[in-house]
Amino acid sequence: MTAQSDSQQTTKNIGLRGIVVADSKISKVDGEKGVLIYRGYDVLPLAIDSSFEEVVYLLLNDSLPKPEQLAQIRQELAEYRNLPDPVIDTMKTLPKDAAPMDVLQAMVPVLAMHDPEIFEEKTWQDSYNIALRLIARLPLIVSAWQRVRNDREVVESNKDLSHAANFLYTLHGTEPDSETAKIMDTILILHADHGFNASTFTARQVTSTLAHFYAAISGALGSLSGALHGGANYRVYKMLEQIGSIDNVRDYVVNTLDNKGKIMGMGHPVYKVTDPRANILGPMAAKLADKLGRTELYEMAEEVRKVTTEEFKKRKGRGIYANVDFFSALVNSMIGIPIDFFTPVFAIGRIAGWSAHYLEEHYGSEQAKPTLYRPKAEYAGRYCGLEGCEWSPVDKR
Amino acid sequence: MTAQSDSQQTTKNIGLRGIVVADSKISKVDGEKGVLIYRGYDVLPLAIDSSFEEVVYLLLNDSLPKPEQLAQIRQELAEYRNLPDPVIDTMKTLPKDAAPMDVLQAMVPVLAMHDPEIFEEKTWQDSYNIALRLIARLPLIVSAWQRVRNDREVVESNKDLSHAANFLYTLHGTEPDSETAKIMDTILILHADHGFNASTFTARQVTSTLAHFYAAISGALGSLSGALHGGANYRVYKMLEQIGSIDNVRDYVVNTLDNKGKIMGMGHPVYKVTDPRANILGPMAAKLADKLGRTELYEMAEEVRKVTTEEFKKRKGRGIYANVDFFSALVNSMIGIPIDFFTPVFAIGRIAGWSAHYLEEHYGSEQAKPTLYRPKAEYAGRYCGLEGCEWSPVDKR
Repeated sequence: MTAQSDSQQTTKNIGLRGIVVADSKISKVDGEKGVLIYRGYDVLPLAIDSSFEEVVYLLLNDSLPKPEQLAQIRQELAEYRNLPDPVIDTMKTLPKDAAPMDVLQAMVPVLAMHDPEIFEEKTWQDSYNIALRLIARLPLIVSAWQRVRNDREVVESNKDLSHAANFLYTLHGTEPDSETAKIMDTILILHADHGFNASTFTARQVTSTLAHFYAAISGALGSLSGALHGGANYRVYKMLEQIGSIDNVRDYVVNTLDNKGKIMGMGHPVYKVTDPRANILGPMAAKLADKLGRTELYEMAEEVRKVTTEEFKKRKGRGIYANVDFFSALVNSMIGIPIDFFTPVFAIGRIAGWSAHYLEEHYGSEQAKPTLYRPKAEYAGRYCGLEGCEWSPVDKR
Repeated sequence: MTAQSDSQQTTKNIGLRGIVVADSKISKVDGEKGVLIYRGYDVLPLAIDSSFEEVVYLLLNDSLPKPEQLAQIRQELAEYRNLPDPVIDTMKTLPKDAAPMDVLQAMVPVLAMHDPEIFEEKTWQDSYNIALRLIARLPLIVSAWQRVRNDREVVESNKDLSHAANFLYTLHGTEPDSETAKIMDTILILHADHGFNASTFTARQVTSTLAHFYAAISGALGSLSGALHGGANYRVYKMLEQIGSIDNVRDYVVNTLDNKGKIMGMGHPVYKVTDPRANILGPMAAKLADKLGRTELYEMAEEVRKVTTEEFKKRKGRGIYANVDFFSALVNSMIGIPIDFFTPVFAIGRIAGWSAHYLEEHYGSEQAKPTLYRPKAEYAGRYCGLEGCEWSPVDKR
């Protein structure tokens, strides 16, 4: 029988765009209006006036904390702010040039091995406690890796600092000033959740198999590392380095677009207007550039944004806008985050959202229990009927 | 403004059942007829007459190998059959009671750190070579972990053995007889692919972000660890241990079903008839039980299958069938696989399929490049319009 395909259909639902896969109460993204809402609250005032700890409480508990609740979650996160010594021993065996996202994806299951409660995870409260441990410790994996790979001592957490300040403290070994700490806090809040983005959907999918919390987060980290997702902010900076000077911007943009390439950090699969997170990070980058004398970098980036927008208008008759990655790359760089840690910084913000999604997927609300995500593929391969194509031993081929 | 939901809709597409998300040429599952086809070929003759190496070739290359091609892939897999020493050093730092699936999920990104070609991955051939390294090395992580956790020397691979035989050799430290090696080979073939199951879909989803090969496989391992997926074979055996004797079977099954519990290993989300893989593993388990004097275990399992089938007929008027996990638990146990390695054994078979899906998702065929899987959620949470609910400082709440 001749081998042939049993289907000539082209698949619909490519990339699942527009396909609703679940109800969620966690965040709402309005791509037309450029609005991002966490549990009902616009992200912009939260980013300016609240704190990452408050946003963690909001995302996990679905309500703003009262004073004693905020005090409690601050204390719980601070208490969990340590890495078991054997975890650091494991990190010391890793090659110094390891990609930081590989380190994170590897170390999260290692954290599971040192969490005796992982196999006693039965109630929402059990999982909530694991969430707090993960949120507290993921930044410490990032900062410990910076120390270990540079043959420096891992810095013990300071429990009196905020979550964001302690991250910078353990990363650099010196306490940040309050302005820098607040910038980091804002970055974490702005990255904390964003609907069913690729890494969040990965986390929910792993969760739906009833795998444990750490397995879901490690999976999400794999997705976040991709160039089309969290890996983009790193690539924005690399692009700016490559362009090198404001004089080269127009040629770079025009050539890239002529060759059907992408300008990193420009455009977004959901936002058709300005990414609301860029509305905070853009001015923040401008202010920092002034303060730190890095206006050359900022102005080159602004030129990339301007020229790309003009070229898009000219070529496609529509606008294109800078996204969160475009400006977070600038801000991260200006507050001294190593370039290859931009995506890990995204991760230590997004872990709040992933955790909320784990809780929602695992415990549901109206739904009693999670349903395994198991889509279909249209078989488009060799086909000789259900009895199969004829197999013959290798020496008869 | 009062907080309220903006939607009363119930979500469709729960678990994505029946939703076609991609074309695929890799495998076809016919759940009505009980047929599983790899690249056009029925899995049953492949499982009996071919070899895992041949199936790897078939899945990755979309054709049966000619003699020289089979010889080449055997040689390539054997050449890659080693773990860098620092990988073993890392494993030695892990707690001895770590869950083996956590070890696998952690160690795959560690393998990436020791694969200098991972960031030079540009062509299909580059990725194909990484696939062969992953397929060759994942079993060695499993067997090395058995040695390390028991404070025994890691066994060096024997390149003259088959892939399956070498796994058992490095696991136990002694060469398996040819019958046992063939059983392991068959188990690996039967687990090598199965459409868009949860772990494969996870792998494809991570791949769609342009994350690297190891990140996708680590993500898939997280999904496979779940009780609703690869973790089921382990739970079948635990259930049999709990039942303890054939005399307790009826009470156990009746009580479990009365309490709306599940009988592990019975039923399948896709197969409405006998899982074709069980048609090979069932008789294999019976034969092994006879040979090894473990008929008590086998007969207890058979009784579970029989009573569950009867009870389902009585209660729901329909049949229920043993799935692959039901019998693979028995066979794995009889060939000396530690119980907590049943799911890792599933993984070292399925890595062949995951790798084929990585190649298909990444390089496509008709599609030029992968599209990020980014579905939608229906927002069903607190909502006060796009301006957001009113936020007030914590001390004003």
